[in-house]
Amino acid sequence: MATEKRNNFVKAITGKSVDFRRWYTDVIFAAQLADYSPVKGCMVIRPYGYALWENMKMLLDVKIKETGHENAYFPLFVPESLLAKEAEHIEGFAPEVAWVTHAGEEKLEERLAIRPTSEAIIGSMYAKWIDSWRDLPVLINQWANVVRWEKVTRPFLRTTEFLWQEGHTVHRTEDDAEEETLKMLNVYKDFIENNLAVPVYIGKKTEREKFAGALRTYTLEALMSDGKALQAGTSHNLGQHFAKVFDITFQDMDGKRKFAWQTSWGVSTRLVGALIMTHGDDSGLILPPKVAPIQTIIVPILGKNGSDCVVEKKVSEIKKMLADTCRVKVDWRREHRVGWKFNEWELRGVPLRIEIGPKDIQKNQVVLVRRDTHEKEFIPINKLKSIITKTLTDIQTNLLERAVNFRDENTREASNFEELASVIDGKQGFVKAFWCGSEDCEVEIKEETMATIRCVPFGKERGKCVLCGKTGPMVYFAKAY
Amino acid sequence: MATEKRNNFVKAITGKSVDFRRWYTDVIFAAQLADYSPVKGCMVIRPYGYALWENMKMLLDVKIKETGHENAYFPLFVPESLLAKEAEHIEGFAPEVAWVTHAGEEKLEERLAIRPTSEAIIGSMYAKWIDSWRDLPVLINQWANVVRWEKVTRPFLRTTEFLWQEGHTVHRTEDDAEEETLKMLNVYKDFIENNLAVPVYIGKKTEREKFAGALRTYTLEALMSDGKALQAGTSHNLGQHFAKVFDITFQDMDGKRKFAWQTSWGVSTRLVGALIMTHGDDSGLILPPKVAPIQTIIVPILGKNGSDCVVEKKVSEIKKMLADTCRVKVDWRREHRVGWKFNEWELRGVPLRIEIGPKDIQKNQVVLVRRDTHEKEFIPINKLKSIITKTLTDIQTNLLERAVNFRDENTREASNFEELASVIDGKQGFVKAFWCGSEDCEVEIKEETMATIRCVPFGKERGKCVLCGKTGPMVYFAKAY
Repeated sequence: MATEKRNNFVKAITGKSVDFRRWYTDVIFAAQLADYSPVKGCMVIRPYGYALWENMKMLLDVKIKETGHENAYFPLFVPESLLAKEAEHIEGFAPEVAWVTHAGEEKLEERLAIRPTSEAIIGSMYAKWIDSWRDLPVLINQWANVVRWEKVTRPFLRTTEFLWQEGHTVHRTEDDAEEETLKMLNVYKDFIENNLAVPVYIGKKTEREKFAGALRTYTLEALMSDGKALQAGTSHNLGQHFAKVFDITFQDMDGKRKFAWQTSWGVSTRLVGALIMTHGDDSGLILPPKVAPIQTIIVPILGKNGSDCVVEKKVSEIKKMLADTCRVKVDWRREHRVGWKFNEWELRGVPLRIEIGPKDIQKNQVVLVRRDTHEKEFIPINKLKSIITKTLTDIQTNLLERAVNFRDENTREASNFEELASVIDGKQGFVKAFWCGSEDCEVEIKEETMATIRCVPFGKERGKCVLCGKTGPMVYFAKAY
Repeated sequence: MATEKRNNFVKAITGKSVDFRRWYTDVIFAAQLADYSPVKGCMVIRPYGYALWENMKMLLDVKIKETGHENAYFPLFVPESLLAKEAEHIEGFAPEVAWVTHAGEEKLEERLAIRPTSEAIIGSMYAKWIDSWRDLPVLINQWANVVRWEKVTRPFLRTTEFLWQEGHTVHRTEDDAEEETLKMLNVYKDFIENNLAVPVYIGKKTEREKFAGALRTYTLEALMSDGKALQAGTSHNLGQHFAKVFDITFQDMDGKRKFAWQTSWGVSTRLVGALIMTHGDDSGLILPPKVAPIQTIIVPILGKNGSDCVVEKKVSEIKKMLADTCRVKVDWRREHRVGWKFNEWELRGVPLRIEIGPKDIQKNQVVLVRRDTHEKEFIPINKLKSIITKTLTDIQTNLLERAVNFRDENTREASNFEELASVIDGKQGFVKAFWCGSEDCEVEIKEETMATIRCVPFGKERGKCVLCGKTGPMVYFAKAY
């Protein structure tokens, strides 16, 4: 019966292999992670989705603080004149900016941009706060909402408003700024791989793909299970670009007034999308235990003829026992059948399910089911705590391993343009290939194959450009979100 | 010398009794809680101020979750047509709304309000999500930024953009909604009194002062040390006002379709202002230990002739020892003298200071100084942990007691209009008096004295209105922020 019910239930979700795009949005709505809102391109993050984001935020916030950064909060609004100061920056963001022009009945003297990112507003404050080399480094992070007016939106991946953190730091030397940029890239890598179980390639963006106003952009690139790449986060060395236009100077140890060096780095609610598209399957979400809002769901199997009381008592006991072991919840609802509940919690990606009925209680055991492998085991109640702890760790490890294997299997080499084009056109995934370094070849490859250079990894490998044959670095190509 | 330095330093801050208004902003800027931004009426919350807000947020968030609420996130934008649905609501907020009219180069078809509060946008979603009595109650909270275009702004107290939490709940019955409204009022009272050490009177707002769109508004009113009241938070029973315009209905147990009952409640970064104005003194901030970003500051007293090494070693040991006792930091800076540091940490309101020099080390002791009483004690190092724990508790208690005493001393009774006017004109504070319940008397009293009815407390006391003599409830009058 459970199977029959599952089929009934899962009908609501498009199969992952049938239509990945639809599967993605179906899962998001059915699992109640998010919903469309009355504002075009803006989504509502529902409690279950927000709890997931909160867990991610909490884990990353610890790492950001451990590396010496402090949180602060800067205004939502950026006066137009301020945003326009850095030429490349305004050019890059202008088409996406939402403008406030009126307050109450009055027209504003100057339009205010809703921050698409905060380099400008923060830069103007840093100019005020920094005076001496003793004030450096400034290591500030902000958790905030930002707005970028997008033509085509998809929940979590690309929304008009999204939530993110943006680090903005100021340093005495170019080396210090570069060190910080790479340090945060690695903090992100650690966070994304070890908490979200999403493996990433890291490297530099090409000039064409870098952040508007940056000297250099580093990126983390993940592979979604439909074979497309997703930029999971970026870390920018801003050089002195913003320092020069905002006049962020300091008196150095040698008494001379110098422009400061800056970095900025961010990850967003887009990571929720990355996580869904990396781990999910035909039954719905699969959440890595470290960030799952509910790690273990208990479904009581209420029998006939008054055994309910016994089950209820035992379930309450077990819930209490597990309270300090994992994030645990009991599904007490009476309006749904057990099979329906199994399916729902699978759909919502809860890593572990405990089933417990009158017969189990007689045998002093429960049934434990893993979401990732669907493995089912009978566990003596006295061993439950330790087995749950171990199994949650196993699931976390397994999800990362699976994703690494998938990514590795879908990273192919191409020694000429035909090979590159044929992989991108067929199996997709990442293609390792050489590139001469010219924007001409980069653009032509993109136009021909729709693949972009996702990143130039840190290795020293060099070889012949797949397009023109000139020598250059190894890069990863892929179609991307 | 310490005194001399203190005087030098404190010159930067206006005396509290000299000019309370200037003292307030001086403290905020000198303590680096916040700064003005290039956007009119918007402030930057600097890391020290934000850490304070984060601590407040964390403590309140626990209480909000313990009472069964979940966090979520709704869009920043509210389409004009949606905001306009509830007539009183739009009338109340229209003058303060910031409007987005353009995105990139394009003019929007409909203007978007930046949320001044989220009843409208959330109501539109609730209409979609709620279908049966089984879906109730819906208990959702949101931590977010909101914008209200204010003519006159002051850091933390009234800023164009501010941070807050807003709870929005939906219930099956009127009683359930009223119970929730009062429950959250008491959650706030507990939080504000026991964590911020700010005592509050609670009660109902008059019809004139209630939230635009509410059925009833309950409020928490604190007394600042200049004698003015401050509204520290509000909890609204929205009745069915929003349910009727947004069509939030459910099928009840009896099979009938009914309109739902709603509440909303919020506190904001304004609480940071409340805390400053309740506890601060001529030397600056005094932060309650439960929310202080740094609870204990260690100032090493580096001697002459190479004793530095010994002090540094000991200080590091002590810092490590205290790491799980309190939030502790060492001021290692070499560019400032010890006296300067003492003053700075007093200004920044750190509850406890440890001084430790070569002589102290010889005697195996440290000097411990309380910020609230300036008491100075020699403490044997082996007792330091337990004494710090105890002293932090004592400071928290003492701050609340002091504030309660001040509030009680500044709550006076008035049996006629002249008494009321004379207190408001002179010593200020709260005035307990009877009021007939009519808006006419309320307005006339306000026009004559500038005092408003802060709240109608829950007691049953009734007597003759100070203005017209008709019988009515006891209320608290005060001039307010």
